[in-house]
Amino acid sequence: MTVPPLPAPEFGEPYLLTPGPLTTAYSVKQAMLRDWGSWDDDFRAMTRALRNRLLAMIGDGAPDYDCVPIQGSGSYCVEAMLGSFVPRDGKVLVLANGAYGLRAAQTLDYLGRAYELLNKGDYLPPRGDEVARILANDPAITHVLAIHCETSSGILNPVEEIAGATQNAGRKLLIDSMSAFGALPLDPVALNCAAFVSSANKCIEGVPGFGFVIARKDEIANAKGNSHSLALDVHAQWATMEKTGQWRFTPPTHTVAAFLHALDLHEAEGGVPARGARYTHNRDVMVQGMRDLGFETLLADRWLSPIIVTFFCPADPNFTFQGFYDAMKGRGFIIYPGKLTVVDSFRIGCIGQMDEHVMRRVVDAAREALQDMNVSSAAPPAAALEERKKLAA
Amino acid sequence: MTVPPLPAPEFGEPYLLTPGPLTTAYSVKQAMLRDWGSWDDDFRAMTRALRNRLLAMIGDGAPDYDCVPIQGSGSYCVEAMLGSFVPRDGKVLVLANGAYGLRAAQTLDYLGRAYELLNKGDYLPPRGDEVARILANDPAITHVLAIHCETSSGILNPVEEIAGATQNAGRKLLIDSMSAFGALPLDPVALNCAAFVSSANKCIEGVPGFGFVIARKDEIANAKGNSHSLALDVHAQWATMEKTGQWRFTPPTHTVAAFLHALDLHEAEGGVPARGARYTHNRDVMVQGMRDLGFETLLADRWLSPIIVTFFCPADPNFTFQGFYDAMKGRGFIIYPGKLTVVDSFRIGCIGQMDEHVMRRVVDAAREALQDMNVSSAAPPAAALEERKKLAA
Ligand SMILES: Cc1ncc(COP(=O)(O)O)c(C=O)c1O
Ligand SMILES: Cc1ncc(COP(=O)(O)O)c(C=O)c1O
Repeated sequence: MTVPPLPAPEFGEPYLLTPGPLTTAYSVKQAMLRDWGSWDDDFRAMTRALRNRLLAMIGDGAPDYDCVPIQGSGSYCVEAMLGSFVPRDGKVLVLANGAYGLRAAQTLDYLGRAYELLNKGDYLPPRGDEVARILANDPAITHVLAIHCETSSGILNPVEEIAGATQNAGRKLLIDSMSAFGALPLDPVALNCAAFVSSANKCIEGVPGFGFVIARKDEIANAKGNSHSLALDVHAQWATMEKTGQWRFTPPTHTVAAFLHALDLHEAEGGVPARGARYTHNRDVMVQGMRDLGFETLLADRWLSPIIVTFFCPADPNFTFQGFYDAMKGRGFIIYPGKLTVVDSFRIGCIGQMDEHVMRRVVDAAREALQDMNVSSAAPPAAALEERKKLAA
Repeated sequence: MTVPPLPAPEFGEPYLLTPGPLTTAYSVKQAMLRDWGSWDDDFRAMTRALRNRLLAMIGDGAPDYDCVPIQGSGSYCVEAMLGSFVPRDGKVLVLANGAYGLRAAQTLDYLGRAYELLNKGDYLPPRGDEVARILANDPAITHVLAIHCETSSGILNPVEEIAGATQNAGRKLLIDSMSAFGALPLDPVALNCAAFVSSANKCIEGVPGFGFVIARKDEIANAKGNSHSLALDVHAQWATMEKTGQWRFTPPTHTVAAFLHALDLHEAEGGVPARGARYTHNRDVMVQGMRDLGFETLLADRWLSPIIVTFFCPADPNFTFQGFYDAMKGRGFIIYPGKLTVVDSFRIGCIGQMDEHVMRRVVDAAREALQDMNVSSAAPPAAALEERKKLAA
């Protein structure tokens, strides 16, 4: 047999500087080169290993928690978590500072469950004292939903502050840690977190196809009968897995095999601390290089996550996002549009199978792209810097 | 580079005689050996191709229909179809003769939508005249849900009869064609079908990770606001795809790439007729061989689908399903347990990358397995034959 026809990144496939799907190791994809019977013992053992190994990542709290994988994308898991753990007469405080917080609120609209939305706009972080005030004023609120890293700006939200305020007020905490878990520490015991979700294709560097809920066992037991959806019923999925070792419905077997290999690589690299350190170094090298070119980040350093970074688009009229995108793609890098509503922006991810050498090439490519476009200064418009002042205020 | 370490079926990996996940072509899996950016034009073109090529399979009706892929498993698509096309004040007649019909009814329980269940037990087919009678008696029924091939027994339900009765009564028809579409003809115009669903990992021989809804365009337009779920909202997924060319949430990019290659192979084989002919021949060779060994099928020939066949377990006390399963697996074949409630059974699938030569080896393996277990006769218990008489009645 010969080499498969499709190139790995080192053979010319572009790097995905996007927050998932991202660039995975070639060996992760090779793990998909066989078919598994979903009913067979071999695959049941893979499912068991997947659950146990994810639980092991939360450390000492693992005995009180269980892990329930859910077919679909990350948004399915957020919906499954909300539908399963928020009782029909519950009320959620949704902390939003970007697209994913707002999507959680929209999900609750669909579910017809009550919520209060704290909408901080494009990126301003929801703070502990605000959360405390809202909870004090509204005793009907039963749950707080926080976004760990709000991927739409790249901000690392202050989950410890939020968790403290939630615990002090005796409410339950749910976390969307989609783009953070696996690279940033998340200790659900310390945070007194009832449940959180993440997905296969973010910091654990698997391919997309499923996500997972990690929840307190007592929360899972109590979730029976809550869900609005058969497919997204965390309790029912858990009960079947406990009883039969199988997923309720056809699992994405190849994605699961890839994920197990991704977990091997994650462990071999040194687990969460090492993965986080690599991403942080990726970010530092890339942000420094981009700043040297004259680009400016939306966020001050203390709020920058090691996951993805938002840059303002240069004010220079020769700059267009599409032109920049194409020039970067031509050099082997897929970047991401920004999600700010007030000023134009783009994003560069730091996660996936990439290291500082790749990040230096990203900066080189950005320099060349500016030259291609005849952009002489990467400085953002005045409005962008005005916008950024809000964060300091 | 060398050969990936994992074996293809021809290198010792067992064949999956299961109704999906199934044995796929090695080249289908090889198509997963790269990462795609979900926002990038290249992937949008793949999504467009996927939708168009599935629509082309329904033939002349294609202009009136659209195809909406949905992340998750097949059951997610059934739920998406019910939640999106049955209005909240609608009522569904669910035609059940096995696990998947019952699951659709359970889905409607979750959704809180009204339904009438015609439960024919383990396998008896719902007939056109019964459907006509029920519809005549209950004008509140707005939709009829039929299962095309009820995979839990392998019966090919009489969808034409059902469609005729539904159309005569002026109601709308929804079809779960999960395990049939791609191998059995399904002309939604002739059946006057409002919507049907299928999935990537059945007769089109892709890998699991998504399914798809094919629905009349006017039904999709009218579905706005119906869905109980953000993730499973067919209208919202469609609207985003039309506007941006993207999936609303992270798509299973590798599964999509595999599926496009599976569509190439499907076309190269000669499309639906050729695929159906191969499966039919697989079935005929396998069933004849098994009958020669003394095994008996649950169903009479006219109801046998070319997808999967249910056999009664032999009455011989030396026979156990687990022993037979292990003996078959040791010979490279993964079979499937039966789902009959009254008598013991097992199932053998005819779909996937397999031909008559493989099916002959399946029969050889079954012969050897019986010898291993010291089973001298494969004849079923009298109760099984009694059970089967019901079908003739
Ligand atoms: C924080 C966060 N939440 C939710 C999601 C939604 O995940 P998906 O696109 O897999 O549905 C994402 C995706 O990037 C995310 O970053
Ligand atoms: C007829 C039918 N409907 C629904 C399903 C459910 O599909 P999944 O297991 O992918 O959820 C299947 C699966 O085999 C099926 O055969």
